[in-house]
Amino acid sequence: MSGKGEFGFIRNRLAPLAAGFKGALGLADDAAVLTVRAGRELVITADTLVEGRHFPEGTDPALVARKALRVNLSDLAAMGARPVGYMTSVVWPSSATDTLRNGFADGLASDQEIFDIALIGGDTTSADGPWVISVTAFGEVPAGKAMTRSGAKPGDCLVVSGTIGDAYLGLRIAKKEFSPSAEDRAYLLERLELPVPRLALADALHAHAGAAIDISDGLIADSRHLAVASGLSLEIDLDALPLSDAARRWLGDQDDTQAARLALASFGDDYELACAVPPARVDTFVAELRKAGLGATVVGVFAPGDKVQVFSGGAPVEYGAGGFTHF
Amino acid sequence: MSGKGEFGFIRNRLAPLAAGFKGALGLADDAAVLTVRAGRELVITADTLVEGRHFPEGTDPALVARKALRVNLSDLAAMGARPVGYMTSVVWPSSATDTLRNGFADGLASDQEIFDIALIGGDTTSADGPWVISVTAFGEVPAGKAMTRSGAKPGDCLVVSGTIGDAYLGLRIAKKEFSPSAEDRAYLLERLELPVPRLALADALHAHAGAAIDISDGLIADSRHLAVASGLSLEIDLDALPLSDAARRWLGDQDDTQAARLALASFGDDYELACAVPPARVDTFVAELRKAGLGATVVGVFAPGDKVQVFSGGAPVEYGAGGFTHF
Repeated sequence: MSGKGEFGFIRNRLAPLAAGFKGALGLADDAAVLTVRAGRELVITADTLVEGRHFPEGTDPALVARKALRVNLSDLAAMGARPVGYMTSVVWPSSATDTLRNGFADGLASDQEIFDIALIGGDTTSADGPWVISVTAFGEVPAGKAMTRSGAKPGDCLVVSGTIGDAYLGLRIAKKEFSPSAEDRAYLLERLELPVPRLALADALHAHAGAAIDISDGLIADSRHLAVASGLSLEIDLDALPLSDAARRWLGDQDDTQAARLALASFGDDYELACAVPPARVDTFVAELRKAGLGATVVGVFAPGDKVQVFSGGAPVEYGAGGFTHF
Repeated sequence: MSGKGEFGFIRNRLAPLAAGFKGALGLADDAAVLTVRAGRELVITADTLVEGRHFPEGTDPALVARKALRVNLSDLAAMGARPVGYMTSVVWPSSATDTLRNGFADGLASDQEIFDIALIGGDTTSADGPWVISVTAFGEVPAGKAMTRSGAKPGDCLVVSGTIGDAYLGLRIAKKEFSPSAEDRAYLLERLELPVPRLALADALHAHAGAAIDISDGLIADSRHLAVASGLSLEIDLDALPLSDAARRWLGDQDDTQAARLALASFGDDYELACAVPPARVDTFVAELRKAGLGATVVGVFAPGDKVQVFSGGAPVEYGAGGFTHF
């Protein structure tokens, strides 16, 4: 681990986060050493958050650290991997205070305990610019078992975990465009700020699913990635969208329910998983997810072809780019 | 690989860099898959370059890409590892042009051919701020054989590869503080801009050395890291500093030769290796490096204790922080 002029912070705040991982070498060497067990492969992902783009200036630095970690763990979850460790490369803004740095380290500390992972290395520096946090996360899968996007088969159901659209509503709250009850507000903001990577699905994915992706760009856009990577058509049923009680209350207040559902399905940051599951296995898959404390809902079906369509009330819906815009 | 709004660049310019690496999944999935061969361990390092801090604004983007890659490969070299692949997380400035992006991809392409590695994933985004390039590099070592900083023994010689201080002089040229002949200018600037990671030393390190570090912060500062990590004293002989012909010519023009040598030994970016080698093995080690086309020079000796001293003409020299300041 390097970090010119940052030795104190690395030694006092980051090195303790690496203490449980021998190959991290106390963050005091040129690189980390990672042992991969026989019969396993390593799954590696990297995601960067930039202040002012992926989170608003002034966000609690502990929440920033935890989200940076969690969006990466979510990618591991989509591959059916068990997380092992992570590296973090940080560019602090020149104005960074000890509060920012310590809050960041606190956030990493609390989440690495929750997810049973360790910091194994990285880099810190500072510059005149926004705060940049890059995380690279490492996970393990049984060799040859990494769950990719391209394994959907014609007839497979599109199954999503949890509920869709909560992060969109959280974003609307953060932008002061929506003001629900205090309880819904807290729930929806937490869904935006502290997504739960669906690591608990790993066994069910390996047992039953052919393909998976995490929903960062929106249910429609990411499910589309599954269809394109698998060379298939996909029909998504907007009316089947699994909604939280909070989202259901919001939907009840909307004039154009179809446009509202489309918004929930088009914006990102849900970090649920969208999976392709053969119809004969759907009931078992759903039951296993329920056992893990998580809902699962069939929202579409794959077919031969190359068209992605969204339906509501049995009629196709124009869904546009279906993409994700940050706050 | 993700990169909101960057799909075209990823598909057209980055995906071809991953074409030779199956586990990169065409940069089209949530994560990459890396297989580590039986009896091997993975060595992982991350380093970030920030425009305006680690390289001047306006630097040829191909050179930036290559240096970002090479400083990471240098860390792998210091661990005695063979590079396998790398990930890159880039934050483009809002003003980034196609020339910048394509130049960056061109630089990666030329260097990954030289070093026989592939891009396996990463992330791209953009923001109002300086250009930020984070690279995470992966290498392999025989299990248990990673070369760390802490393995120096009392009596070991401090041996450095190549020549020291060229990058410092290159920096002086870049800052218009030094104007040598055209030939020396070209040589010294290349040493600054395109350091050669000393991967060729891997076999000799494993066979003969107990500890190694790459010189990024300066010979004195980094050798000091070896001494501290190994719990030893170290005496460095400033008069033994291996110098290039260009550095020798510069030295000949300096009034205070000792201060000049100290400057060469105190500034970073050489990316040579400093190694601890038992005296009985030094001749063989040096001979093997010569066979690999590289000079090697004994510049110090480790001893019991905890003091790092620099000598010149047999007398101790005050060396201050011995640290590295960027341009």
